[in-house]
Amino acid sequence: MAKNQTLKERLYIIIFEADTFAGKLFDVVLLVAILLSVLAVMLESVVDIKVHHGELLYTIEWVFTILFSLEYIARLYVSEKPLRYVKSFYGIIDLLSILPTFIGLVVSGAHSLLIIRSIRLLRVFRVLKMVRYLGEASSLMTALKASRAKIIVFIGAVFSLTVILGTIMYLIEGGENGFTSIPRSIYWAVVTLTTVGYGDIAPGTTLGQIVATAIMILGYGIIAVPTGIVSAEITSQSKKLQEQEKSCARCGAIGHNDAARYCYQCGESMLNSKK
Amino acid sequence: MAKNQTLKERLYIIIFEADTFAGKLFDVVLLVAILLSVLAVMLESVVDIKVHHGELLYTIEWVFTILFSLEYIARLYVSEKPLRYVKSFYGIIDLLSILPTFIGLVVSGAHSLLIIRSIRLLRVFRVLKMVRYLGEASSLMTALKASRAKIIVFIGAVFSLTVILGTIMYLIEGGENGFTSIPRSIYWAVVTLTTVGYGDIAPGTTLGQIVATAIMILGYGIIAVPTGIVSAEITSQSKKLQEQEKSCARCGAIGHNDAARYCYQCGESMLNSKK
Amino acid sequence: MAKNQTLKERLYIIIFEADTFAGKLFDVVLLVAILLSVLAVMLESVVDIKVHHGELLYTIEWVFTILFSLEYIARLYVSEKPLRYVKSFYGIIDLLSILPTFIGLVVSGAHSLLIIRSIRLLRVFRVLKMVRYLGEASSLMTALKASRAKIIVFIGAVFSLTVILGTIMYLIEGGENGFTSIPRSIYWAVVTLTTVGYGDIAPGTTLGQIVATAIMILGYGIIAVPTGIVSAEITSQSKKLQEQEKSCARCGAIGHNDAARYCYQCGESMLNSKK
Amino acid sequence: MAKNQTLKERLYIIIFEADTFAGKLFDVVLLVAILLSVLAVMLESVVDIKVHHGELLYTIEWVFTILFSLEYIARLYVSEKPLRYVKSFYGIIDLLSILPTFIGLVVSGAHSLLIIRSIRLLRVFRVLKMVRYLGEASSLMTALKASRAKIIVFIGAVFSLTVILGTIMYLIEGGENGFTSIPRSIYWAVVTLTTVGYGDIAPGTTLGQIVATAIMILGYGIIAVPTGIVSAEITSQSKKLQEQEKSCARCGAIGHNDAARYCYQCGESMLNSKK
Repeated sequence: MAKNQTLKERLYIIIFEADTFAGKLFDVVLLVAILLSVLAVMLESVVDIKVHHGELLYTIEWVFTILFSLEYIARLYVSEKPLRYVKSFYGIIDLLSILPTFIGLVVSGAHSLLIIRSIRLLRVFRVLKMVRYLGEASSLMTALKASRAKIIVFIGAVFSLTVILGTIMYLIEGGENGFTSIPRSIYWAVVTLTTVGYGDIAPGTTLGQIVATAIMILGYGIIAVPTGIVSAEITSQSKKLQEQEKSCARCGAIGHNDAARYCYQCGESMLNSKK
Repeated sequence: MAKNQTLKERLYIIIFEADTFAGKLFDVVLLVAILLSVLAVMLESVVDIKVHHGELLYTIEWVFTILFSLEYIARLYVSEKPLRYVKSFYGIIDLLSILPTFIGLVVSGAHSLLIIRSIRLLRVFRVLKMVRYLGEASSLMTALKASRAKIIVFIGAVFSLTVILGTIMYLIEGGENGFTSIPRSIYWAVVTLTTVGYGDIAPGTTLGQIVATAIMILGYGIIAVPTGIVSAEITSQSKKLQEQEKSCARCGAIGHNDAARYCYQCGESMLNSKK
Repeated sequence: MAKNQTLKERLYIIIFEADTFAGKLFDVVLLVAILLSVLAVMLESVVDIKVHHGELLYTIEWVFTILFSLEYIARLYVSEKPLRYVKSFYGIIDLLSILPTFIGLVVSGAHSLLIIRSIRLLRVFRVLKMVRYLGEASSLMTALKASRAKIIVFIGAVFSLTVILGTIMYLIEGGENGFTSIPRSIYWAVVTLTTVGYGDIAPGTTLGQIVATAIMILGYGIIAVPTGIVSAEITSQSKKLQEQEKSCARCGAIGHNDAARYCYQCGESMLNSKK
Repeated sequence: MAKNQTLKERLYIIIFEADTFAGKLFDVVLLVAILLSVLAVMLESVVDIKVHHGELLYTIEWVFTILFSLEYIARLYVSEKPLRYVKSFYGIIDLLSILPTFIGLVVSGAHSLLIIRSIRLLRVFRVLKMVRYLGEASSLMTALKASRAKIIVFIGAVFSLTVILGTIMYLIEGGENGFTSIPRSIYWAVVTLTTVGYGDIAPGTTLGQIVATAIMILGYGIIAVPTGIVSAEITSQSKKLQEQEKSCARCGAIGHNDAARYCYQCGESMLNSKK
């Protein structure tokens, strides 16, 4: 930290960056505060707790709302372009995290929306920037992005399948056993195909049970498809990472051992190799 | 589009092909119409909605039926070999999508069959031909076809297993707790092995619960088999694709080994190869 | 078939081998008979059907029992070492498939054991010898055998885990909500960890639900382990198969393209290569 | 075993090592004793059995407690640094395995804690040291450790997701159908996302069922992620093992590329390499 930084500059580094000790500390304290405020909103939704500790939870709600309001104002103050922060994803979430308490003064029941604060927990990834977890997360995201098209095709196919299977079951079971409408039968088909199986609706007729059996085995089998896609993607990605390391200066071979002194293909010394 | 095309030729391109703008537009409009008509049939199956909006839904049903009838006649008209279209998969589905409304005039209740229209949604893949999704879908299909034999053996083995396990549970539980017959016990075995677990039938005796425990761990374990098959297939396929990227500078052969120094086809050095 | 075969030799080929047309036919007919007799036993377990068609099913049972008895005697007659057949896995199953009917004459209720016949359906793999399915099955078996030790360790670890988790839940839930004993709690832990989730027992206390949540996420996560094991095994196996194909006569390189004319590593002609 | 060993040294080898016959025997006998004592504690938790055989189980409990106490004292006696054993993981577990019986003399109900003994079953891996299972287990552990960061990120993401989805469902379903509080809705979201699906809480409103459907398909899809991670890790690990098989004839280096022609360490031709 240079000495000739203004207070505003120093605040900016603390609030928006996580590389310095103060910035890290700010982020961790903020995360704990968010966690506690989310916990308070959760507990308030439990009838028993609200009856006994309603007053306390209401106070906590206001304390955190005022704290988060101050934080929001501070963020606006230190930003060079405040409007850009206001319009950003985090800016909108930060605003939505304090508004419900104020709205709750006028309209009753609005404070349930405070749970939006839980989205602020995504900031945890900013703190984790310090460790290697973010690298892993981004490597996961790359794998998921690379297989996005395949996954969309798969989800589309699964959805079409459940529409058709749900309708077939509606025609077979005919209103009884909970298959009262086609949308409800489709809901059942999804519950069954994804192997969730609530049991709130279950086939009663013999034919229905035979079809349900087929759907289950199908669902048990096709779960292999997304898994296979992602596996293959992660495998090929980690292989690419390995291969990008070094290439031989003479023959251009890649995939060298970490400790290689000579090219495994042409015997050339690896001292001249390109990274 | 050449100028000297007849109306019939132009209609053929619009209706049966998706490469031109008009053809694309036709397909998208058709998909929306199918989606809406399927939605109408779905909503009609909900008792509450039928009571209040039955008239409207009946009108919508007839509008779409007349539209789809006109489309069917147009397809017949523009086809060079109309009979071939009539006999094709899509031709049969298209006919089945309009018939139930007409049959419903004579026999009541037949219009539930209109849900067959949802199969027409498969046309969505024709529209998606434009984007890379179809490529991904076909790559998925290739992987599934290549592992077809393995998957059939697996499903056969799972089915035999459930027959034997279901019978064992029928003998153990003996009619109580819902295991009233062997087919019903087999149904339970499938529900358990595929980890769906409705809970409409659950073992009550201690021995039954021990066997059920073993079945669950078995089911939890063997789900690895189809997944492993498809994973391996997709991995080997994406490797083949990668190998096809490098081509020999002399003979243009593709499919080279990662570490290839000489072309396997003409013996040329791969140092000059194009990626 | 040579002409100087005795009747016994010819019968042996028909009954015990599936390579000739007669042998194939015998096996297929036998499979259909087994399937029908198993179906009859299944249907007999359904109370409604037994009441109306009990007589018919009883007759069918005796017809198949006599047929299978004749088959058993024929197998004994044509075998060179009948005792070896009697002691073999199939010999024991074949005997157990006919005994319950005879025992049923003395002790009532024994004929339920006829379902043992369904194990005879395993013969289907003998018939499938003709097609490539057996090859796939044996390749699957090799992969499973190779990862056997890993899978046993995994199942052992899962079982220990459920014992400990089940006991913890018994201590937390304390008899209510169905956690009446430790074995029952372990049963619940298996139902939850394997993501089956019947719902016949579900945690009622807050602490119990928190622990249950952790168990579910754990179970959702560790299903990756057996899948990963089998995937890796199948991948490495299919790679080995590819590599065994050809090796270069000069440098010994393996992993050549199917259509290779020159070694990709040293440029040697592949005409001299060893398989 | 050398002859000039003292009794203490010989006891040390028997109790703490599993390489000699006596040591192996001691471990196996100990495991059986642990298993039986755990079984006794389990059976005691079943009301029916406790009523009829309570006396016997109480005796068994004391017999095993005294045996394990003697074993604990023996371990203390033979250890060179007894305090180190007392503080070790196994030392603490061993103590916790005998304490509850003694505490049970003063405070009633404490003996339920005896189930802690089941953790002692982890010693089974010490006995398995003899076979290759431990190698497999350690290879599994290495794969899991290598993918630890990825798995933590994944579990964190899944947990955040269930908090947000649970809250959304609480707002949609609003107290009815079992979604009485936010924590309870989060519990439901975990039950659904992990495809466990108890059915003790199930959405009742149409919007709730649509969201539930989306959650299920999501959960069905993202199970692919941990599986993909572990698959890729095990694949890359088994590849490393394979590469270690070939060693250079001159310098003995291992870890060569499959297609290696020259040693990466000393540049020697790999034609003379040993497999």
